[in-house]
Amino acid sequence: MQTAATTGRFISFEGIDGSGKSTQARMLAETLRSEGHEVVLTREPGGSPGAEDIRKLVLEGDPDRWSAHSEILLFTAARRDHLERTILPALAEGKVVICDRFADSTRMYQGLSRGDLRALVDELHRLMIGREPDLTILIDMDPAKGLSRALGRGGSEERFEEFGEALQVKMRAGFLALADEYADRFTTINGARSIDAVAQDVRAIALAHLTGVKAS
Amino acid sequence: MQTAATTGRFISFEGIDGSGKSTQARMLAETLRSEGHEVVLTREPGGSPGAEDIRKLVLEGDPDRWSAHSEILLFTAARRDHLERTILPALAEGKVVICDRFADSTRMYQGLSRGDLRALVDELHRLMIGREPDLTILIDMDPAKGLSRALGRGGSEERFEEFGEALQVKMRAGFLALADEYADRFTTINGARSIDAVAQDVRAIALAHLTGVKAS
Repeated sequence: MQTAATTGRFISFEGIDGSGKSTQARMLAETLRSEGHEVVLTREPGGSPGAEDIRKLVLEGDPDRWSAHSEILLFTAARRDHLERTILPALAEGKVVICDRFADSTRMYQGLSRGDLRALVDELHRLMIGREPDLTILIDMDPAKGLSRALGRGGSEERFEEFGEALQVKMRAGFLALADEYADRFTTINGARSIDAVAQDVRAIALAHLTGVKAS
Repeated sequence: MQTAATTGRFISFEGIDGSGKSTQARMLAETLRSEGHEVVLTREPGGSPGAEDIRKLVLEGDPDRWSAHSEILLFTAARRDHLERTILPALAEGKVVICDRFADSTRMYQGLSRGDLRALVDELHRLMIGREPDLTILIDMDPAKGLSRALGRGGSEERFEEFGEALQVKMRAGFLALADEYADRFTTINGARSIDAVAQDVRAIALAHLTGVKAS
């Protein structure tokens, strides 16, 4: 068995499109590295060679290419591969894994937005994944602001953003409800401030959480 | 609701590699067409554009590319797509669907051969697929004969065949046990005879099953 000092930590970032979570994940990775932690920065869907191939299959092409059920299965397959090949090995080596989106995004985007499939998503997660992050940082953001940011960025394959503001409003409320549901691992940060102000809060929360994780 | 006369029938073929099931599936399709039935001949993994893409992802490349769990998820995603896009629409139009392998192959090849994952395969099937064929024809074959046939054919991506005779022996026993478990839909035919003799039995069983299905 591993001791606390050599077991890594798994931190996920969640939030609606344009909330700034990807920027914050990257900044936290840089901060922790500069403070001596070994960090693996990864993302979903994707994060391992196999999962990236599945990501392409899901996100490229006609948005109606897959039904909600098939999409949930593909995302779960990608997550299983990502977990086995990237996340768990890094944690076993005592590294800090920072992941831009994890299962909570599937709970929202497939479980909520494409019909009421949350129970199915949860059952599939229990059966095939099982693992939750140790800490989930929700970057909360006013949907109108998040959307204008996301559209301004002109993302390539971010087709979920095409669903527009009504979806973002629903997703924001969903993420906040999820933060209540999993209160033991969620921390919500107000993302409607300067990037540096948000980053400062993210750093403080992460460092408090990493107490006891060895920095070299 | 559809009447019996306009509801199709879903027939699957199962058996070890080299058992002749693909040949028999094709011959039955031709026979039924010549007798006025509308027939969709399909196969798994694959059978719809999306499922064929998943098939490539699973069967091409390094055999260790996917873990057993990820492979089960990918095959289930492919099956869901195949069911939604090919099988169910054809059945709704009153067609006869003949499928070379279906969920029983996953119960065997992923559930049995790659560790004891049968319970997981079954739970995933219940959750995401739900549908069984109306009739499953098991072409039973002595593994030594089946293997020499399969190797003689020189299949391109049939990497399961690489596992050799020990696996085939285990799979044969597994298929026979499955035929007992699902005795209401399974019929077992001795495949170690001439192709025409086997085809004659297959035809008789299928026609008996299709009584009441309208041929034009």
